Formats: sequence, structure tokens, C-alpha cells
Amino acid sequence: MEQLKTVNLAILGVGTIGRAVVRLIHEQSDRIAEQTGIQLTIRYAMARSIERVKAAGLRPEQAITSAEPALADPNVDVVVEVLGGEEPAASIMHAALERGKHVVTANKEALAKHFAALSAIARANNRALLFEASVGGGIPLMASLRQILATNRVSQLRGIVNGTTNFILTQMAEHSTPYHEALQEAQRLGYAEPDSTADVEGYDAAYKLAILASLAAKKQIHPENIERIGITQVTPEEIAEARRRGGVIKLLAQATEENGTWRLRVAPEFVPGDSLLAHVRLNFNAIEVTGDRVGTVVLYGQGAGPLPTASAIVSDVLDAIRFGGALTPAIAPA
Amino acid sequence: MEQLKTVNLAILGVGTIGRAVVRLIHEQSDRIAEQTGIQLTIRYAMARSIERVKAAGLRPEQAITSAEPALADPNVDVVVEVLGGEEPAASIMHAALERGKHVVTANKEALAKHFAALSAIARANNRALLFEASVGGGIPLMASLRQILATNRVSQLRGIVNGTTNFILTQMAEHSTPYHEALQEAQRLGYAEPDSTADVEGYDAAYKLAILASLAAKKQIHPENIERIGITQVTPEEIAEARRRGGVIKLLAQATEENGTWRLRVAPEFVPGDSLLAHVRLNFNAIEVTGDRVGTVVLYGQGAGPLPTASAIVSDVLDAIRFGGALTPAIAPA
Repeated sequence: MEQLKTVNLAILGVGTIGRAVVRLIHEQSDRIAEQTGIQLTIRYAMARSIERVKAAGLRPEQAITSAEPALADPNVDVVVEVLGGEEPAASIMHAALERGKHVVTANKEALAKHFAALSAIARANNRALLFEASVGGGIPLMASLRQILATNRVSQLRGIVNGTTNFILTQMAEHSTPYHEALQEAQRLGYAEPDSTADVEGYDAAYKLAILASLAAKKQIHPENIERIGITQVTPEEIAEARRRGGVIKLLAQATEENGTWRLRVAPEFVPGDSLLAHVRLNFNAIEVTGDRVGTVVLYGQGAGPLPTASAIVSDVLDAIRFGGALTPAIAPA
Repeated sequence: MEQLKTVNLAILGVGTIGRAVVRLIHEQSDRIAEQTGIQLTIRYAMARSIERVKAAGLRPEQAITSAEPALADPNVDVVVEVLGGEEPAASIMHAALERGKHVVTANKEALAKHFAALSAIARANNRALLFEASVGGGIPLMASLRQILATNRVSQLRGIVNGTTNFILTQMAEHSTPYHEALQEAQRLGYAEPDSTADVEGYDAAYKLAILASLAAKKQIHPENIERIGITQVTPEEIAEARRRGGVIKLLAQATEENGTWRLRVAPEFVPGDSLLAHVRLNFNAIEVTGDRVGTVVLYGQGAGPLPTASAIVSDVLDAIRFGGALTPAIAPA
């Protein structure tokens, strides 16, 4: 085996996802080192308090309560941003890339709203900006899209990208569960936040669609330009009617290009039974990508959850180290 | 834009796939150069006769009738092997890697039978050995598996990897078409070869499963160690019985690891209706990958055809140039 290359990480945020990343690295770093020659080391972890960092299984000397020490440390190679929310996440990612660090993020909102600017600063500094975990959890969606886009023009994306609403719609369709009861069940199972607005009103799906569509269009598509209808108004009658027609109602995120113009929409839609998307149940996700050469490809899997998401993040960290800035997509401003 | 980097290719084989690669490069090389800075140039194309190369739209000075001139030319960066069959393909790939060229192949048989040796010589020379097109046509299966395997132990693979037999079984199930008639229809549509043995007896699926399982096991799994039952004995009664049970019969390729031992099997199996694989119709493919962190991921799409396959090959060529030997998997001998 070649000599080990030590890679220093700063993990910003130790919520559910951040803790899962810490755990994965603690459990798997020896195996990863053996297989790749890369020794992953957590140099910093940031949270609001040092206590929270310690509760995540880290030592006090790893704990920081602002990003600055990590950004200022020239030994930090990769910043893992799992804070969530637009700010300060977007500004921190920008600063990290500017200072020559690779950035791996799971933050769909910050990325969707600042994709062009973040991609530009990453490319200017020849650094990786990777975000596999931002859409579809552990589904290797970005790896797949990157490969397809190298040789295809992608003119349509269609998918079930929010597990919470898909779980609710599945319960409503398969067990005639009323909407509010299905939502409560999703919350009990940890699929939905106590405040479910981002999920049920389609904001989460719109952020994810903005990222996917920006990649296909190679220019930024802002989430505010996406027509967005949530699932709160879906009635048992509509669901029963869909079943009579041999299909189901799904919250679909759709982007379609025609003559250079993209139509973007997140809304409950009828999906006929002969479409694979009709058979995506519970909290699973599936994304359909249509390219001019490859035809229609569908990727399916757990769209969320700490284990799949952490797995995608660490995979991105390894790619950032091995392949660097060449992986960063070029996203033109809107 | 940075300065263009010219990359010289040798395309070995100008059958259906080789011609599609030539066409894709002729049509897309300007767009690819603009987006990646890589100028793809076909330096050589090999066929049994110079006439066949010219018929593929190439100039006589590009034509070679043996691989030797391409292997001897230090300016050739990437060898695209689309000859098919075990030999001389395997020996040529070995020689190309030994001489420091990247190799991109669509050849499932040669790869399945010589995976460890080819991977070893590629890694010893720090060259890319890429094979996205060998399984699942344009489905980004290898890109996905590579990402999943970086952070997951994969203990189960299950899939529909042969489009011909899936088309035949679909016709039998949905239209009660007798086996021989369905086979003839597949041949008429170009989904099946005049000699259909490799498809209907499961050899094609076994080669593909050997490649997938070798990647998951990180050691070579020989196709002859795969239990193999084709579809020629599937009866209309079995298909009707499957439907009564709410499912379908599919030719499944399956690899399962238990306590370090892999069980490998290609055979017609009952698939219940709540599995996504039951809804993979016609000549489509789908592969289910189960990792210990990511859970079950399914990849679905056109598993064959010149356009998707050429698209995967050219994408591999670009990855070989940009990322090189780091992409080559380590496959231990059996």
C-alpha cells in the first residue's frame, strides 16, 4: 500500500446528519484508508456550543462555535457543511471555497439559492463543490447526472424527491388514512419535522428541483421561479379517482425544456400505473432523467435518513480529494 | 476557456456500437471540447478490412486491420475496445494497459473472464480501466456502484440485466404470446441476435452479474461459478400462476453474500408486485444494489442499444482523461 494521505475535515453542524458523518468516519476511516490511501481526520466540528460537539462524540479541542477557525486553518482540506438553511451556510461555503478548501454540502436551500455564485468561486479556485446528499439522500443521483450530462442533452427531469409527502400520499392511497393522521404518523416515524411546512407545501421539493434543473440547464434556476403546489389540498376523492383510473397521485417535481425555455413545477399529479414512478411507495424517492441519447433513466432509493445521507457525504469527500475541482459543475448565472 | 487538450483515440471494432461511438464523436466533439476542454480525435479505427472502417464514416488513413499500430503509437491516449468476445479482446486490452493507455470497454465477456488481471495491469500502470457500457447500456451503473462502494458494504445485487429475455417474458405475460413467437418478435425488433443462445440461456446475464459481483466482492467472481438457468423452459402456466399470485416471472441475476461467501444465480424467478423489479417491462433493465448504509438503490433504463451504449463509452473516455487510474477498481484474483 502507498503511504497514507491525511485529509483534515471541518464538519459544520452536528445535528442528525453531522453526527452520522462523525460516526461513519469514526467507524469506517480505517477501512477507507486501507482501500483508498486517504486517512480522514476530523480537525474541527462546529456547533452553537462546545457541549453539543462533545455530545457528538468529539473531543473538546475539536470543537468550534464559529466557522472562522476552520476557514483560517490552512491545514483544513475539506469543509463539510451540514448546517442547513440559507445563511450563514451560503456565506460560509463561499468563504471556504475562496480560501481554497473543497466544500461538500447536504444543504439544498443554500445551494439552490446560490448555485451559480458557489460554482463560480469553486471553479475559479479549482476546488470541488459537491452536493450528492442535497437531493435524494444516498441515491447516487449527482454521480449519475454528471455522467449522463457529459454526452447527453437532458430535456426532462421528473421525480418524487420528498419522502415525507410520498409517505403521506402512500398512507392515504393504501389505507385511506386521512391527511392529518398520515402527517402525524410521518412525524412519529421521524419522516416529518414538527413544522412540516417545508415538506407539505413543496418548498423542499422545489429546492431539490432547482438544483437538478440547474445542472441540466447548466445555468441557475432559482427556486422562486418554480410553480409550487403542496399536498395539503389533496382530497380522498382525488386519490380514489386516481386509483379508478389505474394510477396514483404523487407530488411530482418536473422540469421540461422546450426551445430553450424551462417549465418548472412541483405539484400533486396523476401518475399512471405503467410508469415506474407510480410504484414508488412510502418514504422512497425516485428521479427520472431523460437524455437525448441515453433515453429515460430512473434512480430509486431512500431519499433521506442519516445513514444514506452520511454515506453520500463521505463519498463526496473522497471524490473531492481524489478528483478535485474537475468535478465542480459550471452553472451560469440565471 | 483554457487551451484545448487533444486526446487521441483508437476504436477497436466498428460494429453497431463502434459506429455509434464514431458518430457520437463526430457530432458532439465540438460541444464536448467547449464544455470540458478536451478535443476528442479518432486516430485509428480497427476492423477486419479497411472498407469496413471507411463504411463507418472514417478516412482510409485512420483504418487499421490489427491493433498493433494503435498500441505501438505513443500518441494514442485511450483505446476503446468494442470488439466483443473473449479473444483477442482481452489480450489487446492487456497490451494496451501495459503500454500506458487508458482502456474503455463495452465487452462484458472479456471483462468478466479477465477482470482481476486487467484491473491489476491497469493499476500497476496507473491507467483507467472503465466499463460503464458493459452492463446496463447507458444506465450510470458503474458510476453509482463506485460511489456506493466507497462507503458501503454491498451484500446483495439483484437485477434484470438482459433486455432480450425481459422483452420476451413481457410479451408472454402481457399478451400471452408463445415463447418462440416472442423470440422472433425480439429478433425482428433488433433486440435479439439471430443466434439467441447467449441471451436466452442466461450467458449474457451471467457475464454481467460476474462483473457486478466482482466489484461488490472486490475480488474476481468467474462467470462459470454462477448457477445459470435460461428462459427457454418457462411455461405459459408458470407465467399465469405468477400473475394469479400478483407478480411476474423475471430472469433475475442475483448475488448475495453471507459470512464471506457469495451465492450467484441467474434464473427465472417469481417477483412479487410490490417490488419495483416487477414493473420493469419490455427491453428495459433494472439493477437493485443493497448497501449497509444506503439501503436499497435501484437503477433503471435502456440496457442496450447503440445510442445509450455509445453515450456511456464516451463519458468513460472523458473520465479516463480527467481522472485517470484512480477510477480503476481493485479486483483481487479469485
